[in-house]
Amino acid sequence: MTRRCFFAAAGLAVAAPAAVGAGQASANTDDLPKAALLGDGDTKTYLLVFSTGQHVMNGLLAFAKKHNLVAGHLTGIGAIDDAVIGYFDPQKKAYLRNHEKGQAEVLSVTGNLALYEKEPFFHVHVALGLRDGAARGGHLFEATVRPTVELVLTTYARTVERKIDPETGLPLLDL
Amino acid sequence: MTRRCFFAAAGLAVAAPAAVGAGQASANTDDLPKAALLGDGDTKTYLLVFSTGQHVMNGLLAFAKKHNLVAGHLTGIGAIDDAVIGYFDPQKKAYLRNHEKGQAEVLSVTGNLALYEKEPFFHVHVALGLRDGAARGGHLFEATVRPTVELVLTTYARTVERKIDPETGLPLLDL
Amino acid sequence: MTRRCFFAAAGLAVAAPAAVGAGQASANTDDLPKAALLGDGDTKTYLLVFSTGQHVMNGLLAFAKKHNLVAGHLTGIGAIDDAVIGYFDPQKKAYLRNHEKGQAEVLSVTGNLALYEKEPFFHVHVALGLRDGAARGGHLFEATVRPTVELVLTTYARTVERKIDPETGLPLLDL
Repeated sequence: MTRRCFFAAAGLAVAAPAAVGAGQASANTDDLPKAALLGDGDTKTYLLVFSTGQHVMNGLLAFAKKHNLVAGHLTGIGAIDDAVIGYFDPQKKAYLRNHEKGQAEVLSVTGNLALYEKEPFFHVHVALGLRDGAARGGHLFEATVRPTVELVLTTYARTVERKIDPETGLPLLDL
Repeated sequence: MTRRCFFAAAGLAVAAPAAVGAGQASANTDDLPKAALLGDGDTKTYLLVFSTGQHVMNGLLAFAKKHNLVAGHLTGIGAIDDAVIGYFDPQKKAYLRNHEKGQAEVLSVTGNLALYEKEPFFHVHVALGLRDGAARGGHLFEATVRPTVELVLTTYARTVERKIDPETGLPLLDL
Repeated sequence: MTRRCFFAAAGLAVAAPAAVGAGQASANTDDLPKAALLGDGDTKTYLLVFSTGQHVMNGLLAFAKKHNLVAGHLTGIGAIDDAVIGYFDPQKKAYLRNHEKGQAEVLSVTGNLALYEKEPFFHVHVALGLRDGAARGGHLFEATVRPTVELVLTTYARTVERKIDPETGLPLLDL
């Protein structure tokens, strides 16, 4: 189906503003995100399985380099016994790092892949579940797997790039 | 690959019930969810990037209206400095709202898009990570981005609709 | 697009190691995960909607058996009023089970589908949001829906299998 056909098939007119139902947000165009059409058929989906002692972020980078990957996104689960997670402090323009020691369930791993200075760069966040069921989480700097982390990585042929945002000093997606 | 070919390729017979391994649930058909085959090749995947000060739910709605989107799902991460999250109280048939003030990592944004009263309607939940690594979360009413929220939205040409469930008063998916 | 074309389109050379930017992990090949190319066009995406009183894990298994599914992954949200979540204790090589009683938002459901002893087997983790916004979570043994759980399940024709890992006794993905 072509892009044109797709929008024809969608078949919705938006000429007139309509009442918004059930507490749904209003469609303020100031909030319109930048967008890139990543996939239109040319996608690859990989199941990635990490084993005890492997490092998730290092492994993702190794995988992206091995396969010359340039864009993608991932979700997954697993368990780890050590992690460093971050919280970005906008005043300090720096990440605080919390060292999470001990076995934890990985409730979710969510992130994306783009290029930064021509190298693959993963931006990944994690939610962890502790022994008593309490949840923690943050920006994933690194995690040591125990006994497995299972990720699904979908990749795209279209390159996406990051560049440094002068306001924060962070490598943000540059669409 | 046609649907027929797909099932042929899957190649599993289910004529005989089999022992269920390792604590796996039993396949009680009372629990069979309603299902719609959303994608069979005609999908579009968008990378959506929000910037400081933008509102995620408003922006998603604006994007869906701009592109006449009718069905989809999304995952993503980022950071925000203000959010209103909800918890549905089934006795009161209403959402309690918790106002999350201050900078937080977005550990996961997960949700879907359908039509409600012919307008795009996003149902989105969020998990947040605080300065000390503690996690919080709920139904996402709105969040103000700081410095970025990065979502991957996959959309489908097949319309999915919500309608009010008389029991709860909520606009539930109507398959 | 063929696999060969895909890598050509990606267009990145990896002959020379490059400096790693902005705290990004190094690409240690020891951490390279095992990988299976799941999808290359032949995917099916289902929207699954569970209703009050249904059991998520049982329902997923019933759905997989009904459609002879052999591999996939899922994400989703919803709300439940009862769940049993697990934490794997590597010393005891066993799951501790926390019984989560009472209504909770499902912040994220994340998981995958493979075959274990020729039967479909879902491995799913969940993050929950409580009345006060606090988050909890773990390995999902079972959850009772109230009023809805909305999942997106993407399935693949290529079989993925689990087998018992002698070290942990767990059925791990066997690529």
